[in-house]
Amino acid sequence: MPTVRVQLGPASYDVHIGPGLLGTLPQRLGKLLPKYPRLFIVTSPEIWALWHKKFLAPFAKSKFYAPTVLFLPAGERYKRLSSLDSLCEQLAHAGADRDSVIIALGGGVIGDVAGFLAAIYMRGIRYVQVPTTLLAQVDSSVGGKTGVNLAAGKNLVGSFHHPIAVFADIDLLSTLPPVELRSGLQESIKAGIIRDAKLFAYLEKNVDTVLRGDSKILAHVVTASVSVKADVVSRDEKEAGLRMILNFGHTLGHAIEAATGYKQLLHGQAIAWGSIAALVIAARRGTVTNAQANRMANLILSYGPLPPFRADAKKLVALTSADKKTRSGTRSFILPVGIGKTKIVCDVTNAELHSAASAMLAMMRTLTKPSA
Amino acid sequence: MPTVRVQLGPASYDVHIGPGLLGTLPQRLGKLLPKYPRLFIVTSPEIWALWHKKFLAPFAKSKFYAPTVLFLPAGERYKRLSSLDSLCEQLAHAGADRDSVIIALGGGVIGDVAGFLAAIYMRGIRYVQVPTTLLAQVDSSVGGKTGVNLAAGKNLVGSFHHPIAVFADIDLLSTLPPVELRSGLQESIKAGIIRDAKLFAYLEKNVDTVLRGDSKILAHVVTASVSVKADVVSRDEKEAGLRMILNFGHTLGHAIEAATGYKQLLHGQAIAWGSIAALVIAARRGTVTNAQANRMANLILSYGPLPPFRADAKKLVALTSADKKTRSGTRSFILPVGIGKTKIVCDVTNAELHSAASAMLAMMRTLTKPSA
Repeated sequence: MPTVRVQLGPASYDVHIGPGLLGTLPQRLGKLLPKYPRLFIVTSPEIWALWHKKFLAPFAKSKFYAPTVLFLPAGERYKRLSSLDSLCEQLAHAGADRDSVIIALGGGVIGDVAGFLAAIYMRGIRYVQVPTTLLAQVDSSVGGKTGVNLAAGKNLVGSFHHPIAVFADIDLLSTLPPVELRSGLQESIKAGIIRDAKLFAYLEKNVDTVLRGDSKILAHVVTASVSVKADVVSRDEKEAGLRMILNFGHTLGHAIEAATGYKQLLHGQAIAWGSIAALVIAARRGTVTNAQANRMANLILSYGPLPPFRADAKKLVALTSADKKTRSGTRSFILPVGIGKTKIVCDVTNAELHSAASAMLAMMRTLTKPSA
Repeated sequence: MPTVRVQLGPASYDVHIGPGLLGTLPQRLGKLLPKYPRLFIVTSPEIWALWHKKFLAPFAKSKFYAPTVLFLPAGERYKRLSSLDSLCEQLAHAGADRDSVIIALGGGVIGDVAGFLAAIYMRGIRYVQVPTTLLAQVDSSVGGKTGVNLAAGKNLVGSFHHPIAVFADIDLLSTLPPVELRSGLQESIKAGIIRDAKLFAYLEKNVDTVLRGDSKILAHVVTASVSVKADVVSRDEKEAGLRMILNFGHTLGHAIEAATGYKQLLHGQAIAWGSIAALVIAARRGTVTNAQANRMANLILSYGPLPPFRADAKKLVALTSADKKTRSGTRSFILPVGIGKTKIVCDVTNAELHSAASAMLAMMRTLTKPSA
């Protein structure tokens, strides 16, 4: 079964990828945690309803006490400090101590909140990620970024706190709505564009079989995507430089999410539109040829359809300046250099962004009819 | 002017101690922060009313923009995640970015909350401590422990996040109520007991002049106390071992605070009673002679008076098991070995604790009459 190592000195950990991981989870945890500490699952009622039997059955045969389950309602609007307050109180009342371990069982929101919970409860306890969406498996569960939203913006509060292991069970994707599979694959495409030409070509060649959700093929895509992320995070844990390349497509992507109230588009869909705009800038600057830009945009679109949204270019540009990536007013921007390589530039002007956003919106109009 | 270095590799920082530091703060910050980032002060309305003129005057002549002031109401009951939520939103609305720097101007609560704010805003920004109480100067501003309380217990949520500098301006102590000075000095006595026989002897010899609040003498006491803490924290940042000795007196001290609803006693006063109980255990186990135990208890009492409180030994012992220092049910306990040395033991029984708490309560009754 594929294992990808995230190299972070004493905080290093493995990402395990494959089918059937839930069945062996207590065994694998037992090796990591030979003292059998108390376990606390953070999950949503929906995920738990689908998976609790498969999750708990092997624990009943293990040396672990039955894990305690804490629920976070599904949805971005519960990704707030007030949820943390409640989860912390629940942990304390249930007797969690410094040796206790949290298991994040869910998508990106659950992973971010449960990871942050582990980061701050008693100033930091250990946690494990068991991502249940493709997006969480290929992206958010790896890299130690945890946190919650403010009214003022997404992910503005949080910590870098690494899990002690990630278990990406491909079987969990079987209950994922197809639209979420497609959305998550946009982050795999991103991984290909920024650092893995082979993954890019694989996604290009196998559109149909990937989208059909074949377990072996998905395991391959997840492994390749996680390898890109693990390599980048291992070289730049705290986003001092290289790690910024993971934000390809995210400058305008985040602006699109903000402009549409984080409701209309899935994260991967917004990033896909943002990537198309970034490709416009790259082509105009000549860091990619027009042919390469078209090839990348086509791959993004072939894992669509990308739903249209209403926003004007001016508003999108204005929203980018609130982005967390800004440092003392300087904006970093990620441009592909051909396919599978990137560079970070700091001189993308508002005029360039505006023009690229306009071109992306024009493409959207030719591809789709905006909803009313 | 005395400077104590906290050695933590790339996170190392200096604690500056002396009078007149507010007047040179922008200069000193300018050396640490040559790019003159935006500054955000977190303070209480009371402290700000007393000190804003002295604080702001030198900034008006500096290259820094006028700092933005964020208020946290005074008192332990505002040391909660809900205050963090509000402070984070205020930072975001005021345009704080990853380069911004927080200045914690206040006592322990302000320092803990502002430090935690810096730890989690945008996954961590820089901050500076300007402690205004003796307790904060000798103890809580140094060491990077930040956090807030839960309903379930004190300091159960937080981060290790080190300031980039601490400025302990002795002048700030001039507006401190005498009872708070005495309470803060209990942490200096603790520093002497656990690791600095010279400091212990100095506090013993100079009770009157220390309590009179002479600036030079206080600067000496603060410097010696901070040196103990800095040395311990430098050797064990995250309390894996040695740092636990700073918890001398705190096992029962925290239980006393919990039993009295965190209202009746100041922190230093509760720790003083807790230390007396710990000395009973040390004397009975023979890690100190009776004469040494008496000398230490007498020093603690000479920096009193310690207010009496109502609680029975059984309740206090029960409350110790909720303490954060517990790991998988094992309780660490700090015992002095003579004066100026300590050891950590893990085998203090509930019966020993009960008996020591009873002896301490009996001493309280002979010294004072409990309030109604």
